[in-house]
Amino acid sequence: MNFGVIGYGYWGPNIVRNLVNLEGSQVIAIAEINAGARARAQKAYPNVKITADASEVITSAAIDAVAVVSPVWTHYELTKAALQNGKHVFVEKPFTSNTAQAEELINLAQQKNLRIMVDHTFLFTGAVRKICQLLDEGALGNLYYYDSTRVNLGLFQHDINVLWDLAPHDLSIMDHVLKGRPEAIVATGQGHLNGHEDVAFMTLYFPEKVIAHINVNWLSPVKVRTTLIGGEKRMLVWNDLEADEKVKIYDKGVKITNREGLYELLVSYRSGDMWSPQLEQVEALRQELSYFVECVSNGREPFNDGCAGLRVVQMLEAASESLSKRGALVYL
Amino acid sequence: MNFGVIGYGYWGPNIVRNLVNLEGSQVIAIAEINAGARARAQKAYPNVKITADASEVITSAAIDAVAVVSPVWTHYELTKAALQNGKHVFVEKPFTSNTAQAEELINLAQQKNLRIMVDHTFLFTGAVRKICQLLDEGALGNLYYYDSTRVNLGLFQHDINVLWDLAPHDLSIMDHVLKGRPEAIVATGQGHLNGHEDVAFMTLYFPEKVIAHINVNWLSPVKVRTTLIGGEKRMLVWNDLEADEKVKIYDKGVKITNREGLYELLVSYRSGDMWSPQLEQVEALRQELSYFVECVSNGREPFNDGCAGLRVVQMLEAASESLSKRGALVYL
Amino acid sequence: MNFGVIGYGYWGPNIVRNLVNLEGSQVIAIAEINAGARARAQKAYPNVKITADASEVITSAAIDAVAVVSPVWTHYELTKAALQNGKHVFVEKPFTSNTAQAEELINLAQQKNLRIMVDHTFLFTGAVRKICQLLDEGALGNLYYYDSTRVNLGLFQHDINVLWDLAPHDLSIMDHVLKGRPEAIVATGQGHLNGHEDVAFMTLYFPEKVIAHINVNWLSPVKVRTTLIGGEKRMLVWNDLEADEKVKIYDKGVKITNREGLYELLVSYRSGDMWSPQLEQVEALRQELSYFVECVSNGREPFNDGCAGLRVVQMLEAASESLSKRGALVYL
Amino acid sequence: MNFGVIGYGYWGPNIVRNLVNLEGSQVIAIAEINAGARARAQKAYPNVKITADASEVITSAAIDAVAVVSPVWTHYELTKAALQNGKHVFVEKPFTSNTAQAEELINLAQQKNLRIMVDHTFLFTGAVRKICQLLDEGALGNLYYYDSTRVNLGLFQHDINVLWDLAPHDLSIMDHVLKGRPEAIVATGQGHLNGHEDVAFMTLYFPEKVIAHINVNWLSPVKVRTTLIGGEKRMLVWNDLEADEKVKIYDKGVKITNREGLYELLVSYRSGDMWSPQLEQVEALRQELSYFVECVSNGREPFNDGCAGLRVVQMLEAASESLSKRGALVYL
Repeated sequence: MNFGVIGYGYWGPNIVRNLVNLEGSQVIAIAEINAGARARAQKAYPNVKITADASEVITSAAIDAVAVVSPVWTHYELTKAALQNGKHVFVEKPFTSNTAQAEELINLAQQKNLRIMVDHTFLFTGAVRKICQLLDEGALGNLYYYDSTRVNLGLFQHDINVLWDLAPHDLSIMDHVLKGRPEAIVATGQGHLNGHEDVAFMTLYFPEKVIAHINVNWLSPVKVRTTLIGGEKRMLVWNDLEADEKVKIYDKGVKITNREGLYELLVSYRSGDMWSPQLEQVEALRQELSYFVECVSNGREPFNDGCAGLRVVQMLEAASESLSKRGALVYL
Repeated sequence: MNFGVIGYGYWGPNIVRNLVNLEGSQVIAIAEINAGARARAQKAYPNVKITADASEVITSAAIDAVAVVSPVWTHYELTKAALQNGKHVFVEKPFTSNTAQAEELINLAQQKNLRIMVDHTFLFTGAVRKICQLLDEGALGNLYYYDSTRVNLGLFQHDINVLWDLAPHDLSIMDHVLKGRPEAIVATGQGHLNGHEDVAFMTLYFPEKVIAHINVNWLSPVKVRTTLIGGEKRMLVWNDLEADEKVKIYDKGVKITNREGLYELLVSYRSGDMWSPQLEQVEALRQELSYFVECVSNGREPFNDGCAGLRVVQMLEAASESLSKRGALVYL
Repeated sequence: MNFGVIGYGYWGPNIVRNLVNLEGSQVIAIAEINAGARARAQKAYPNVKITADASEVITSAAIDAVAVVSPVWTHYELTKAALQNGKHVFVEKPFTSNTAQAEELINLAQQKNLRIMVDHTFLFTGAVRKICQLLDEGALGNLYYYDSTRVNLGLFQHDINVLWDLAPHDLSIMDHVLKGRPEAIVATGQGHLNGHEDVAFMTLYFPEKVIAHINVNWLSPVKVRTTLIGGEKRMLVWNDLEADEKVKIYDKGVKITNREGLYELLVSYRSGDMWSPQLEQVEALRQELSYFVECVSNGREPFNDGCAGLRVVQMLEAASESLSKRGALVYL
Repeated sequence: MNFGVIGYGYWGPNIVRNLVNLEGSQVIAIAEINAGARARAQKAYPNVKITADASEVITSAAIDAVAVVSPVWTHYELTKAALQNGKHVFVEKPFTSNTAQAEELINLAQQKNLRIMVDHTFLFTGAVRKICQLLDEGALGNLYYYDSTRVNLGLFQHDINVLWDLAPHDLSIMDHVLKGRPEAIVATGQGHLNGHEDVAFMTLYFPEKVIAHINVNWLSPVKVRTTLIGGEKRMLVWNDLEADEKVKIYDKGVKITNREGLYELLVSYRSGDMWSPQLEQVEALRQELSYFVECVSNGREPFNDGCAGLRVVQMLEAASESLSKRGALVYL
C-alpha cells in the first residue's frame, strides 16, 4: 500500500517511520509547509518525494492512502479532498472541528467505499487493551467512576484549546472501554494567555450513575497521566508514566451491608491484594497502522473509524458549549 | 486553661493528647456517647472525668473552653450551648451545617466576648505555612490556577457527602493562601452507595482569571493528596504524602512573547531548576491548639475564627446547590 | 505480668506505651539516667515509679520481667543482673557486644529457667511475616540472592559503628527467613567523623550459591529501606517506606535453556505479572511484646530468643573482623 | 568524516543513526555477522554498504574512522587492525579484555598519531556533566562516599560477567568526576546460571577516606540506576530513571561539634533545602560522537581516550582478581 503523508511536524515523523518499517506499506510522498521540516524529511528519506503542496499528495495516482497529520482546522478540507480523489484516509485526532464536518466525511467515505481511521493511538497500547479486556470480563464489577488527569507544560496549540488538544485521548478511551454513552456534560476552565482555555475540567454523566471526569492542563510544572477507574468489585489505577506496572488492579471495594435506617447504615470496606498484569510491549502506533493497512486491504471497517471520531467530536462540542457557559449542563 | 472535650472517636484522641501535653492547658472532662471509646479514654487518662453526657462538660464551672469533636450536624447545638455557658469553643471543620447557623454562632460569641476557633488543622502544617509565605512574597507571580486532588478509600460519613467531608481542607487552605474570594462555583458528582455523593468535583471562579478545582473521592483505591498551583513566574506542587520534599517549586513558566496576529503568536516556555524548601517539622494540631490557648488568653481573634469557618460553609453550601443542579453556576 | 523498663530515650517510650496498653501486662517502674526523659515519663505515666537507678528496677520484688532498652554496651551487665534477680528479659538488639557475653547470658537464663527475648522487631511486621511465608512455601524457587539497602542521615551512635547499629535488622531477618546459615563474611566500610564506620557494606556467602549483601549508611541524604530477594522462579522487592504495597512479587526469572557449547548457551527471560499481597496491619512491637508475655506465661522459648540474638552477634563480630582487615574473608 | 561501523546488534543502530544525522560525518559501510541484523541495516540505510566481513570495513580506503561496536573479546583484534590500517577508532566499553591489550593499543595509536575514543557515553549526559561541575566547584565539600546501584533483569552476556558488563559505566564516571584514583579494591559476587557472576559488589578505597561502592545485578526484577554521593557540605542523589529531576542536591550534612571525651562527643545534623538543577537535554551519544569528530579533525586527544579506557580495565581486572578470591583486597 502506497502512502502519502501530509504534515511532518511533531507527530508526522513517527507516522512516516512506522509506515516505512511496516511490511506491505511504503511512503511515496510527504507534504509539509515548513522548509526546515522538509529538509529533515528529505535527509532521513532520500528516496521519498518531499513537497510543500499537499494537493500533489492528494492527487497522486500512485498513492492509495493519505495520512493527514496536520492541524485540526485543516482535517476536514484535506480529508475531503483525499476521499474525493479516491484515497483511504488515516487522520489525526480530533477528527474534525465540528460534528457537521465529521458527518459529511463519514457519508462521503461510505459513498466512495473508502476507509477512514481516526488516530486514537492510545487504543492500541498494551495498557488500554488490558483495561478494555478487564472491563469486558467484568473484573471491576459495576462501574462507579472514570477519572483521568492529563497535565503537563505545553505544548500550546494556536487553533484549539486544551480540551480539544488533550481530552480526545481520554474521550476516545472512554468511548472504547465503557459500555454506555454519556448523557450530559459539564465543563469548566480558564484561559490565561492566548484566549484559549489552558486549564479545563470536564464531567460526563453516564447512565446508571457512572460518572467520568477529565482534568487537562497545559500549565502544569509536572507531567501527570493517571486514570482511576472505580468499580463495585475492584478498582484500577493506570499510570501511563510508569515504565513498568502501568496498570494496577486493587482488590478493594466498599459495600453497604445494612440499609435499615440512617444510624444502622454500615459501609464496609474490603481491602485485599494488588495485582499488576504484564502488558504487551508493542509500539501502539505501529499496531494501529498495521491494522489500518489490514482494514483497507480487507475492506473492513476499523473500530476507530469516522463514527468513533465523530463521537469524540460530539463530546468536545458539548464540552465547548458548557465551557462557554461556565459549567452549564449540556445534553448529548 | 481547663478544657472539656466532646467526642472521643477518630479525631478526639488527638485533640486530648495534644491538650494534655501542652503547657498551660489541661483536660478536665471528656464526653463521648460510645461506651467502648469511653473505656479507652478512661484507661489512657485515669484522672480525667469521662461521661456520656455532653451537657456535663458544657455546664461544668471548672471548664474554660470546650473542644467540639463530634459529627457536623451536632456542631451548631453544642457550640451554641457552650457559648451560652460562657465557654470558648474549638470546633471541628466544617464549622456548621449551613451559613445561618455559622452567622448566629459568630454573633453569639461576639456578644459574649468569647473566641471561636474552627479546626482548619492544615493551616498549621509546615507545608501550608511555607506555601502561604511563598504566595505572600509573590514567588509565583500572578496566579493562574489552584488544583487539588484529595482521594482515598473511605471513611464514609453517614450525615454528609464527600464534599462536606474532604473539601473543607482545600477550601480553608485556599481561603487562607489566596488573596481573592471566589465569585462562583460549579460542582458535579455522583453517589453510588448511601445516597450521599462519594465522588465530587468542584470548580471555583476567582477574580482575575484565577481558577480553582477540587477533586474529592471516597472510592479511590489509592490515596492522593496533591495540589498544583500555577503562576506566571513559577509553579508549585504540594504532595502531602511525601515524607520529605512535600513542597516543590518549579522555575517553569509560559509566556506570550508576541501578540501580532494569530500565526505570529508565540508561546515561549521557561524551564529551570526545581527547589524544595525545608519545612517546619511540628505537629500541626499541637501548634493550632497552642495558638488557641494563646488567643483565648490574650483576647485575640484567631485567623481561623468563626468568620473563616463561615466562608468555608458558604462555599460548601454553594457547591451543594450546584451539585444538586448538576453543575449549575452558583454565585457567592 | 509486671514490667520494669530500663531506658526511656528513643525507643523506650514505645516499649512502655505498648506494655501499658497490652492486656495482662503493666509497667511498674522505669529507670532512666536523663532527667528530662524522666520528667517526660512521669508526666505521661503519673502512677509509674520513675527512677535514675536501674538497680531499683532490677531488684524490685514486684517486677516479673525487665525490658532493657539502653545502649548496647550496657546490655550484658543489665541483662545478667536481671537474670540473677530472677527476671525474664526483653533486650534490645544487638543482644550483646560480643559472642562470649551472649553465650554466658543464654546459659544463665537456662540455669534459672528464665526467658530472654531479643527485640528483633522487624520479624513481627506484616512484611517480614509475609516474606517468611512466601519463602517457606517455595514461592520464589531456589534462592539466588538477598540484597538490602538501609541508609539514612544519622542517628550516629557513640559506642558502635553503623554495622552494629543498622545491620542487626537485616541479619535477624535473614536468619529468620533464609534456611541456611552463612559460611563466610566480607565487610568493607569507612568512618569519616568519630572513628566509627558510618558507611559499610557486607557480603555473606551462604551455602548453595546464595549470596547476601547489606548496604548501611548513616550519611545518606535520603532514607532507603529496600530489600531485593531473587529466586529461580520469582523475585521479590520489599520497600518498607511504601505506605501500601510494601512487598511486591514479580513473576520474573531467568533460565539457561541450552548448555551445548558457549555460543549456543541461551539465557531465556520470563517476565510476567507483579502481585502485591495485602499485609497484616498490626504494630509489630505490640505483637512482639504480646508474644513475649505469652512465652513467659507458658514457659515457651521464643524463636527470637538469646540464641537468635547470639547468631546475629556472631555475624556482626565476623563482619567487624573483616572490616578491620579491609574485606578479608572471615569464616563463621 | 567517513565512518565504518562494525557491529549492528543492540547498540550499533544507535551509533549509526547518530553518525548519519551528524553534520560532517557519514557512514560508508557496516559490518555485521548476523544476517537478520544486516537485513535491517540495509532496509534502514539503502545507500550504505552492508557486509558480513569486518575486514572489508577495516581495509576500506574510503573510511577515516571505525566504530567498534562488537563483543568485548573482539575489541582488541578489531581496534588493532583498524589502527594498523590508519583508522581512528571509536570503541565500545570496556575498552579491552585486559590491561596489556589496552596498553598495546594506546601505544600503537600514539605511533600512528591516531585517536582512540572509548564509548563512556554517560560522561556526555546532562546528569554527569552537572555532577562533574558541582564536584569541581566543591559544592559538596570534602567527599565521603560514592555509592552506585545498577541492577535490572539481564541482558546476560556470554563472554563477560556482570561486573565487566555494568560496572564500566560507574567506573568511568568515578574516574571522571572524582579527583583521586582508587588505591585498592574488594569485590564479591556469585554466579548462578552460566558460570559468570550475575550478582556482584565492589568496594573501592580512595585516598583521604573516600570510599566507593558499586552494586551490579543481572537478576533484579526491578531496574535501579541510583547513585548517592555524600560530602561534608552537601549530598547528592542521582536517579537516572527519573524523567525529570534526575539530580538532587541536599543541603544536608553531619558535623562533629565537640571532641572532648566520649560522652560529650556531639554529632550535629544540618538539614536544609533540596535543589534539583535543570540538566541539558541532549542525546549523550550524539554529543560524544560529535566530540569524536571534532577531536579527530583537530588532532586533539579526547578526555575519554585510550588511557581513560585503560584505567577502567585496570579496575575491572583488580575486581576480577578480588572476586575470584572472595573479597581479597587487591591493590592497584
